[in-house]
Amino acid sequence: MKELIAIVRMNMMNRTKLALAEAGLGSITAREALGRGKGIIDMQLLHGAEHGYEEAIAQLGQSHRLIPKRALLMVVNDDLVQKAVKTIIRTNQTGKSGDGMIFVFPCQEAVRVRTGERGEDTLDEG
Amino acid sequence: MKELIAIVRMNMMNRTKLALAEAGLGSITAREALGRGKGIIDMQLLHGAEHGYEEAIAQLGQSHRLIPKRALLMVVNDDLVQKAVKTIIRTNQTGKSGDGMIFVFPCQEAVRVRTGERGEDTLDEG
Amino acid sequence: MKELIAIVRMNMMNRTKLALAEAGLGSITAREALGRGKGIIDMQLLHGAEHGYEEAIAQLGQSHRLIPKRALLMVVNDDLVQKAVKTIIRTNQTGKSGDGMIFVFPCQEAVRVRTGERGEDTLDEG
Repeated sequence: MKELIAIVRMNMMNRTKLALAEAGLGSITAREALGRGKGIIDMQLLHGAEHGYEEAIAQLGQSHRLIPKRALLMVVNDDLVQKAVKTIIRTNQTGKSGDGMIFVFPCQEAVRVRTGERGEDTLDEG
Repeated sequence: MKELIAIVRMNMMNRTKLALAEAGLGSITAREALGRGKGIIDMQLLHGAEHGYEEAIAQLGQSHRLIPKRALLMVVNDDLVQKAVKTIIRTNQTGKSGDGMIFVFPCQEAVRVRTGERGEDTLDEG
Repeated sequence: MKELIAIVRMNMMNRTKLALAEAGLGSITAREALGRGKGIIDMQLLHGAEHGYEEAIAQLGQSHRLIPKRALLMVVNDDLVQKAVKTIIRTNQTGKSGDGMIFVFPCQEAVRVRTGERGEDTLDEG
């Protein structure tokens, strides 16, 4: 099993969830995240602060703002990871900076509280 | 070490945390999650949208609602994982759909910021 | 690749993010977390509830409060993990209880949605 965390634009959440549901993938939780890409802080700008502190900090204030993003979490069986990744890319790819990231983590066990049942089958039913 | 993420009903959070504390388990953070089980979206309904778009979408609107849930995060040493899982199940099991899920992830390292200390002992004191 | 989750005091978030950016580390998301250390619930107090229920519960109400904390998430390449850990410790270490924790998790894959590109290089540009 794998956990996927996808950081996507806030306004892309609903269509991403629909696309995942249409692909037969579910069990998602969503949370608000304050994301920023690595590019948002301009390191030159930070270093520039040594020379022209106030002006640089003023610009920094603008470039350092957090862009609200949403994080999608899902746990899927191994054979569905690539399907989920492709679905998320297809739905969120605009080609512009800020399209988001997908991270894949190993998940050792899933337990359904209602039944106590464990393992891969746990992810297959509601 | 393992990370446990438990998705539980919002109104079960306090008693779950108390039960974990009584079992000698702590170091929990909580966050709001918008969870939905895989069963909440009716795939037939989605496919039905091809035939009777508006009616199906109207029903979809009802079945697709996000159920507010809470996520409990905890990092515990390996020998306490099953105790934590059992405590969460015992506290949250009503037998009805929506009782929640527990996911177990490998955690490679824990570092206590106050002391810089690392490893399993890190989780034993406050 | 590794995922780092750092639980820090709310008022330490901005300076932590700046310190990480100055160290050349980015790709952070932040979320509010309701953290509590293991020490906050006094187990004696809980056991005391058997003897003097109301008084103990009253004290419990005080000691059981959740301390708002922030969680920093970042995914970094393996060779930057120790640099990130040191930067977070240096910025957050006051020596008082509640300085926070850092957890390190294995991350198997990172995918940039804009380009579809995968792997370690994914984390290097904006």
